[in-house]
Amino acid sequence: MTTMLPPEERTGIPGGTLITKTPEEGRQLAMLIARHTIHQIQPDLDVLKAGRPDYTSDARALTAAGQVVAIEFQTIAAANNYWR
Amino acid sequence: MTTMLPPEERTGIPGGTLITKTPEEGRQLAMLIARHTIHQIQPDLDVLKAGRPDYTSDARALTAAGQVVAIEFQTIAAANNYWR
Amino acid sequence: MTTMLPPEERTGIPGGTLITKTPEEGRQLAMLIARHTIHQIQPDLDVLKAGRPDYTSDARALTAAGQVVAIEFQTIAAANNYWR
Amino acid sequence: MTTMLPPEERTGIPGGTLITKTPEEGRQLAMLIARHTIHQIQPDLDVLKAGRPDYTSDARALTAAGQVVAIEFQTIAAANNYWR
Amino acid sequence: MTTMLPPEERTGIPGGTLITKTPEEGRQLAMLIARHTIHQIQPDLDVLKAGRPDYTSDARALTAAGQVVAIEFQTIAAANNYWR
Amino acid sequence: MTTMLPPEERTGIPGGTLITKTPEEGRQLAMLIARHTIHQIQPDLDVLKAGRPDYTSDARALTAAGQVVAIEFQTIAAANNYWR
Repeated sequence: MTTMLPPEERTGIPGGTLITKTPEEGRQLAMLIARHTIHQIQPDLDVLKAGRPDYTSDARALTAAGQVVAIEFQTIAAANNYWR
Repeated sequence: MTTMLPPEERTGIPGGTLITKTPEEGRQLAMLIARHTIHQIQPDLDVLKAGRPDYTSDARALTAAGQVVAIEFQTIAAANNYWR
Repeated sequence: MTTMLPPEERTGIPGGTLITKTPEEGRQLAMLIARHTIHQIQPDLDVLKAGRPDYTSDARALTAAGQVVAIEFQTIAAANNYWR
Repeated sequence: MTTMLPPEERTGIPGGTLITKTPEEGRQLAMLIARHTIHQIQPDLDVLKAGRPDYTSDARALTAAGQVVAIEFQTIAAANNYWR
Repeated sequence: MTTMLPPEERTGIPGGTLITKTPEEGRQLAMLIARHTIHQIQPDLDVLKAGRPDYTSDARALTAAGQVVAIEFQTIAAANNYWR
Repeated sequence: MTTMLPPEERTGIPGGTLITKTPEEGRQLAMLIARHTIHQIQPDLDVLKAGRPDYTSDARALTAAGQVVAIEFQTIAAANNYWR
């Protein structure tokens, strides 16, 4: 039996908008969007949990994850006109 | 005998436009475009299915897939003027 | 004896323009440009064919190819003002 | 017992803004944002420290880290209108 | 004794400008700039030649090279206002 | 005893500005910025030197380095309005 992630963990754009009040909230949204994309491709929580310890103790894998967040944040920052 | 994906699974831009009503639909389109590119290069469903279990249980491969979706989404978000 | 790709398979920008009528044609152009770059670096058809089966049955390699197409498409979509 | 990074090491956007006085400060912010993303995914200092010697003596891993900083800096530089 | 590449093979921007008459010339410039960057880091022709056969028969390495050309071309295409 | 790189080799943005007179100088700055980021993460010259021979004779590692320079150059080229 597999434990599927609930639908709210698989929304593409949590909150339904790219507009945020602050850069900090924008960054959190970038992280969330990146994570939910993974959830959409692999919604089985057990598989995700099994991979996590190895993944989060590998500097190269963490760097790759950081790169995805950086790209999502570029989009969000542009959407918010850089909170200027 | 190979099972080829039907043409509608190999359209480059499903729906024929980058314009969507909501960020959520834009995100779904990004995912779809990313997936259809793979389908265009490898249209044999059996080969795709054979690779899927290994691929979707590997955090590094999932991260790489997430990066492609992030890049496609940048284009779609810009096309929609970020749904501002 | 090697089988070299003909010159038309090695054009950098097939058609000589980034402007296309539809997003779908733009996507096809992105795929073509990505492929021709490979042809320019490695114009020996036999070498390309030899690598193809392994490459197109590896989800990670397909993801990397999809990423290149995504980047080329960003440029083409911007050139066409996103076909708005 | 694990040593968790303090909250200030896990802020998404240290200082709460993308605007900096100089390109040099913008670059430092890019580095900091890249690092804090890693901290958010892996807040256990011991795990991070354990991976560091191997990681920082591997040219390929350093290059990957440099790429993330480059992407974050693109966003910050655009936010600051390139300090023109 | 090493055979160093001549200075003209190590210019950062051959021709000294990003402006080209056609997209095709822009693409050639992107390829050239990508190649010259490699030449600047590794100017020893013998080392470059030694690595070439392995590199150009590996679909994954060719894909990575294609990605760099795609990024350089983004810059050149923007510089030329997409030759619109 | 380790040989640390001097502070001027660890400046984030050498010269303190993204504005350059020519594309060639812009390209040199991109290379320098990419290199200094590595220096900031790993300031021990001996470690850097130890990794260099292996790294600079590996086409894949050189390609990855070229990609970082390409991204830094995008930023610099935009900052200089492409030296139009």
